Amino acid sequence: MALYTPNKEDPVPRIYDSPEVSVDIFDVHADGRTEERVRVVVPDWVVVVPITEMGEVILVEQHRTGIDALSLEPPGGRVDPGENELQAARRELLEETGYSGGTWETLGWVHPDAALLSNKLWLFAAHDVIPVAAPKSDPFERLTVRRHHIDELRNLILTSRIHHGPSLLAIQRVLLTEYALERGDSL
Amino acid sequence: MALYTPNKEDPVPRIYDSPEVSVDIFDVHADGRTEERVRVVVPDWVVVVPITEMGEVILVEQHRTGIDALSLEPPGGRVDPGENELQAARRELLEETGYSGGTWETLGWVHPDAALLSNKLWLFAAHDVIPVAAPKSDPFERLTVRRHHIDELRNLILTSRIHHGPSLLAIQRVLLTEYALERGDSL
Repeated sequence: MALYTPNKEDPVPRIYDSPEVSVDIFDVHADGRTEERVRVVVPDWVVVVPITEMGEVILVEQHRTGIDALSLEPPGGRVDPGENELQAARRELLEETGYSGGTWETLGWVHPDAALLSNKLWLFAAHDVIPVAAPKSDPFERLTVRRHHIDELRNLILTSRIHHGPSLLAIQRVLLTEYALERGDSL
Repeated sequence: MALYTPNKEDPVPRIYDSPEVSVDIFDVHADGRTEERVRVVVPDWVVVVPITEMGEVILVEQHRTGIDALSLEPPGGRVDPGENELQAARRELLEETGYSGGTWETLGWVHPDAALLSNKLWLFAAHDVIPVAAPKSDPFERLTVRRHHIDELRNLILTSRIHHGPSLLAIQRVLLTEYALERGDSL
């Protein structure tokens, strides 16, 4: 793999740096040729699909600056320093929706984009969550809490009403788990 | 939504520019506060899950510089100028695996990451593909073609053997479609 990794002797220029996101430029070498690559360094992310005892899925709608448009998503966010993934997911659920508690299920991790992004995305489902507080308001997020029955999720995917990749990774995994349980599979 | 979008009077500094990826920095405003955001501008991407008549799924393993590690994925890549999404997916399938033909199914589009990335990811399945050429070698990609039976896909996800978000969005959608067909659902 040495062909592809940056030469450890080379400095990796960091062309942008902030607590949320940094941008590195580095060279890769193969067959005597050199190409430049970009790596976007971000903390790990979490997404949790919260479901009430009645089968309501608690989603949040918010503006996303990457696409400059609204996006309907399960709650989620970044893992803060000193937190583990589960703690981050519980905090984001409470902050963004006011829901808490429930029985938590881990749905694994993925790389949201292995070509550009360095981080992992941790996926959870939380069953039988209950409302315990008002959602916390952040002027930059301006979240709106939206409730949909779990049976509506397939249609929200099909119609691209939910179009945010990390959200869909979690939701599709919840649906796959449900179908597998129906079939008696191990997934 | 005007609170969140960059002020059209403000210049948006482009701190990095290449045909593959550009990086923009811009301000967002809310409640009299200003925060800086990063947007990574990339072309649209495509992923296709190619399946032979025998139920073999044709995957490629390659090094990904974002995570500096190997990644097992369905073929895919970026939409080149002058191509539509289907053309790009057919080209990537042929280049990366040497397979072509088959019956194509569109699985919709998603935003791979609505927070940082501006682009769309288009998802396809191609049924009954056949080998027609040798895979095209690119020294920077150094792909290895891997074949797995479609029944192995669930396990490859569960064990994080496949961990690349855009790939998983396509594969999970293929599995959901299969399960839905078994159940007689519309998805």
